[in-house]
Amino acid sequence: MSAWVLPDHIADVLPSEARHIEELRRGLLDTARGYGYELVMPPLLEHLESLLTGTGEALDLQTFKLVDQLSGRTLGLRADSTPQVARIDAHLLNRQGVARLSYCGPVVHTRIDRPLASREPLQFGAEIYGHAGLEADLETLELAQACLRGAGVTGLLLDLADVRVIDAVLAPVPLDAPRITQIHAALAAKDVAELRALASDLPEQVRRDLCALPRLFGDVAVLDEARRCLSPSPALHAALDSLAWLAAHTQNIEVSIDLADLRGYAYYTGMRFALFARDVQGEPAELARGGRYDEVGAVFGRKRPAVGFSLDLKELVSAVAPRPLVAAIRAPWGMDASLREAIARLRGEGHTVVCALPGHEHEVDEFRCDRELVSDPAHAGAWTVKTL
Amino acid sequence: MSAWVLPDHIADVLPSEARHIEELRRGLLDTARGYGYELVMPPLLEHLESLLTGTGEALDLQTFKLVDQLSGRTLGLRADSTPQVARIDAHLLNRQGVARLSYCGPVVHTRIDRPLASREPLQFGAEIYGHAGLEADLETLELAQACLRGAGVTGLLLDLADVRVIDAVLAPVPLDAPRITQIHAALAAKDVAELRALASDLPEQVRRDLCALPRLFGDVAVLDEARRCLSPSPALHAALDSLAWLAAHTQNIEVSIDLADLRGYAYYTGMRFALFARDVQGEPAELARGGRYDEVGAVFGRKRPAVGFSLDLKELVSAVAPRPLVAAIRAPWGMDASLREAIARLRGEGHTVVCALPGHEHEVDEFRCDRELVSDPAHAGAWTVKTL
Repeated sequence: MSAWVLPDHIADVLPSEARHIEELRRGLLDTARGYGYELVMPPLLEHLESLLTGTGEALDLQTFKLVDQLSGRTLGLRADSTPQVARIDAHLLNRQGVARLSYCGPVVHTRIDRPLASREPLQFGAEIYGHAGLEADLETLELAQACLRGAGVTGLLLDLADVRVIDAVLAPVPLDAPRITQIHAALAAKDVAELRALASDLPEQVRRDLCALPRLFGDVAVLDEARRCLSPSPALHAALDSLAWLAAHTQNIEVSIDLADLRGYAYYTGMRFALFARDVQGEPAELARGGRYDEVGAVFGRKRPAVGFSLDLKELVSAVAPRPLVAAIRAPWGMDASLREAIARLRGEGHTVVCALPGHEHEVDEFRCDRELVSDPAHAGAWTVKTL
Repeated sequence: MSAWVLPDHIADVLPSEARHIEELRRGLLDTARGYGYELVMPPLLEHLESLLTGTGEALDLQTFKLVDQLSGRTLGLRADSTPQVARIDAHLLNRQGVARLSYCGPVVHTRIDRPLASREPLQFGAEIYGHAGLEADLETLELAQACLRGAGVTGLLLDLADVRVIDAVLAPVPLDAPRITQIHAALAAKDVAELRALASDLPEQVRRDLCALPRLFGDVAVLDEARRCLSPSPALHAALDSLAWLAAHTQNIEVSIDLADLRGYAYYTGMRFALFARDVQGEPAELARGGRYDEVGAVFGRKRPAVGFSLDLKELVSAVAPRPLVAAIRAPWGMDASLREAIARLRGEGHTVVCALPGHEHEVDEFRCDRELVSDPAHAGAWTVKTL
């Protein structure tokens, strides 16, 4: 096999796309900073148990394992940054009040979860710790939208869900963890036949509620429908009330609700959301996902309220129009002091100046040079920029 | 062991340092862009043979290995980006002319090579392919200095070497690879006793030249000294001439020469350099390293002239003074439309606006708020920024 062949679902990012990703990356970090989020940089490698405790089987299967030669212990290559940021909030910062944190870096997956996915997403995210109220949920929804709009995404759709709805439906019966996992999988697949089979020995009320969940998606009217057809409980009503409040206070976006939605990592404990934009075929493509995960710091000794979101810059870049390349200035190569000064001055002003190395004067330059630095025939040692 | 303990020589980067690294990162990429270098993003994981072929044993030992569950093949976690960028130049871009490429991303090492090093450097680099002349070497030297100066490093020192000097000294005798490796190690350690032992069965002239090399360091006068005391050969003189040319054309920096210098990866084939700055103890600390590596793309089917440099942003950030945090504006939380508009407008103008969530109004904010958004008592629905 040739040495230049990359592993499946691993790819280089070439100049035009890399430049666009870098521009988007700066915009996302600046937007989060404008909301008061501080940047942190967790490491790529950690002890496996730090990365995985409390995060569920899906993340374990997605995580590459390797051996630390210094300690003989098993390390994981991070597949998701959220457990790391929770660790930083819980242990390193250890603040009593609100902490707003953002991050941007690669994560690596052993396998893909969609046909054209990359195994090396470039994950950007923002998280708010220390506030249990819905205001933090709303700020997260607003920041996620601001990030995508700032990147140039138009026609956003917001999908809301809450894992506490399913918890409330299952609350009347004690079920073991494998059974709950099976039920969650059937709900996520909206597989009503499988749900019926799994619920066959459950009380009539629980069975009926479970089988109703896959139908409960659509606009905000679904929340009233859920109040009518699901068995009432304080936990259910609290979840529905918070979804109604968030939907009512979310501005300038079409909101849909899916009460059976359970995709993604197992650490969510409350509201969950996804932001979609229609792709070139008109199909909604999920660009950002997030929610509340109040338990995720527990393993690090400090269970704090937490809500946040993340997105993959490699997905995002393919969903927005490329930006035009800023044109550059071509310059001759030379050791002449006046030439070198002229070039340094232009670069200092923010221009890209590409020097044509000797023998390469007639090559096509990738930087679209629309101007040229030429010596001024009237003044020896003077250089002027001429339009090409 | 506690879940929050990180592996040895692996660390989180916390907000104040992460912000500084991000600012430096943008400055470095913009400086490289000003010289016409295009950004590429090679992946973290590749087939092991792609990462290692032709790069020598040191890089192999520094590379974490893992198994690709999709193919069963062994992957490497990159310990250095240069072989990847050579692959991109050789195979993906496949340009006939000059290609200038830059990159910035984490690399991971199984072990450290200095006491306080990180096993996860954040590597930035820039490389120029397709030009064998010294002009490319000089551009690399100039860009590396511009990058460090732009980051705020002062008092730079440039150290020059050339592996062809050692090759020329050893050329008269055929030696096997392990013997050459031993000789290189003794030269790198300036271990003259070990060199004498290794050279004991070599011709008198080679032995004398080898043992002279560790003394040949200092200012540019070393080049004349080398011409006097080493056995003359066209290859030796070509190497010394190119070092003399580079030293003569390098401006505004103190230049030193070390003809026995062999540190770093084995892929260098000609000029090598390092840029140093004095640390707080006055000791020179190496901040950037580079050189010519014309062979590194050969394994990808296209041997092109190549010269470049790289640096570790985590080292760089500790060598420059921190920049002051831009002050922020504190705002109350509220659903009032005029308040939300006022906040959005300030954020749109580039300000950081931190909303105090309900119940958290009296917390210390990490963003040093020196202004506050307050409602204007004279005009209902109007908000003004007040100095705190």
